[in-house]
Amino acid sequence: MTVVGSIAFDAVKTPWGERDRLLGGSAVHFALAASFFGDVRVVGPVGDDFGEEEYAVLHARGVNTEDIERVAGGKTFFWSGEYEYDLNTRLTHETQLNVFADFQPKLSEASRESDLLFLANIQPELQREVREQCPRTRLVALDSMNLWIETARDSLVRTIEGVDCVLINDAELRQLTARPNLVQAAREVMDWGPHTVVAKQGEYGAAMLTREGYFSLPAYPLESVIDPTGAGDCFAGGFLGYLAAHPDEDLSHDALRRAMAYGTALASFNVEEFGTERVQRLTGEEIAERVSELRRFTEFVDAPVPLRS
Amino acid sequence: MTVVGSIAFDAVKTPWGERDRLLGGSAVHFALAASFFGDVRVVGPVGDDFGEEEYAVLHARGVNTEDIERVAGGKTFFWSGEYEYDLNTRLTHETQLNVFADFQPKLSEASRESDLLFLANIQPELQREVREQCPRTRLVALDSMNLWIETARDSLVRTIEGVDCVLINDAELRQLTARPNLVQAAREVMDWGPHTVVAKQGEYGAAMLTREGYFSLPAYPLESVIDPTGAGDCFAGGFLGYLAAHPDEDLSHDALRRAMAYGTALASFNVEEFGTERVQRLTGEEIAERVSELRRFTEFVDAPVPLRS
Repeated sequence: MTVVGSIAFDAVKTPWGERDRLLGGSAVHFALAASFFGDVRVVGPVGDDFGEEEYAVLHARGVNTEDIERVAGGKTFFWSGEYEYDLNTRLTHETQLNVFADFQPKLSEASRESDLLFLANIQPELQREVREQCPRTRLVALDSMNLWIETARDSLVRTIEGVDCVLINDAELRQLTARPNLVQAAREVMDWGPHTVVAKQGEYGAAMLTREGYFSLPAYPLESVIDPTGAGDCFAGGFLGYLAAHPDEDLSHDALRRAMAYGTALASFNVEEFGTERVQRLTGEEIAERVSELRRFTEFVDAPVPLRS
Repeated sequence: MTVVGSIAFDAVKTPWGERDRLLGGSAVHFALAASFFGDVRVVGPVGDDFGEEEYAVLHARGVNTEDIERVAGGKTFFWSGEYEYDLNTRLTHETQLNVFADFQPKLSEASRESDLLFLANIQPELQREVREQCPRTRLVALDSMNLWIETARDSLVRTIEGVDCVLINDAELRQLTARPNLVQAAREVMDWGPHTVVAKQGEYGAAMLTREGYFSLPAYPLESVIDPTGAGDCFAGGFLGYLAAHPDEDLSHDALRRAMAYGTALASFNVEEFGTERVQRLTGEEIAERVSELRRFTEFVDAPVPLRS
């Protein structure tokens, strides 16, 4: 797998504490989550302040960092934000693009030949440039956000036309299509080209529409949520990771359903602690156990009942 | 089953149209939904303006109206409200208690001997008075709302202590317990007495905690939602109805899971048209088909994958 997206330092404040400088960014969260399933290559720029300690976190999970471009004299992307009491409302205090402002993605031969490509949430033009460098990729997935819908919608739609799968927040899916109904919104995006649309619903889970039908999975119920930052990218990492681990399998509705379960599991671990802390010491056994629990928490066997018409 | 709650006329405005005078009220929506599963008795007051046409809707579905108290010279409970663009935000324009202001519930012998009792959303003291008239009921369930949490919380908690099952909106469950975490909030309510807590999540579905564990079910995906009024009560009607149709079955986690599916199905039909219009011409076959679809939309079979720890 190859991921292009932000590599960042985050300052995060939640009702449970705050941290000044966490390793973060969509590409980092994706890569750590996906690393449980197969090889991952990260494409993106960092500054001089991105040091051995940060590389070590990625290398400890076997993530390939050859395509991380270190800009001499530059500063790494920085985000600071705050979550309110119920963690559903996020307030951005500051976004410093820094080295991202002039980023021109150049993929190595190895990254271009990846089986799967994830275009994490960055400028739609950059996503498109990367996508065009990978014509033979089996599956290209994309995330985006309200900023690009508001400032670069035409470019974003053009980028979406060239990908297979869109993973996006449900509110942003509605905003993107100007359709309040989720199913209608997903159908509209599929009309543009993608065969799969996943609407991420935060604490409620995620819903998916494919050409074969609908699937929905609640989030894993947690008694303690510490920091939601990166949950969506970990979801994408688990989702694409599962598909990457089955290179010979069709991208069938059944396989995509299972991918949803792995995405849900990875996202649930991510939010249990600040930044990448929980995923850094996660084990494969814990992931497998949580997927089994998710199945138990959502399955029911119908025992039909005589109904009075 | 017996239900005590409002019997109302509703004036509803949504982005898709408006109606001046719809038959509504929590007891009516519950009764129509539950009528597919067994006998239902409605307890509540109406005014002179509640006529043959309204009774006929209930009688057409076999609902017993002997305990509906007609107050001479009185006016039926009236609610008017409006839904915004995405139907998730509801604005109440007016609530006229009318005959409900002086309501003193008097249950007939037959209502007191019901197998299941639903205390729909009314003043907690009234709910408690009804509950105390039904000491032998197999399952007593309750709904409530922010108004009572804000104005009569102590009374509501005392009422909850005496019931088996609480069905409530997730935001109100958080408000009631002052706990932002849903699982913690549900546990706290269970500490007060109930063995089952269902958090209704609107378009996202519903989550349930019992002494045996957790279960969650997304809502049925609809491409057209016309009027969400009464969805929660139809959910309760399907949920309790399923349990009423299995009088000899333990209230096991498995049975409650299946009940969640029937509740979800009934709620989904309700919102497809204004007021009670869709449920009035619903058939048992349609309900069974939707429950099967819900199972298909949520089930996945895990195919374990080698995970790299």
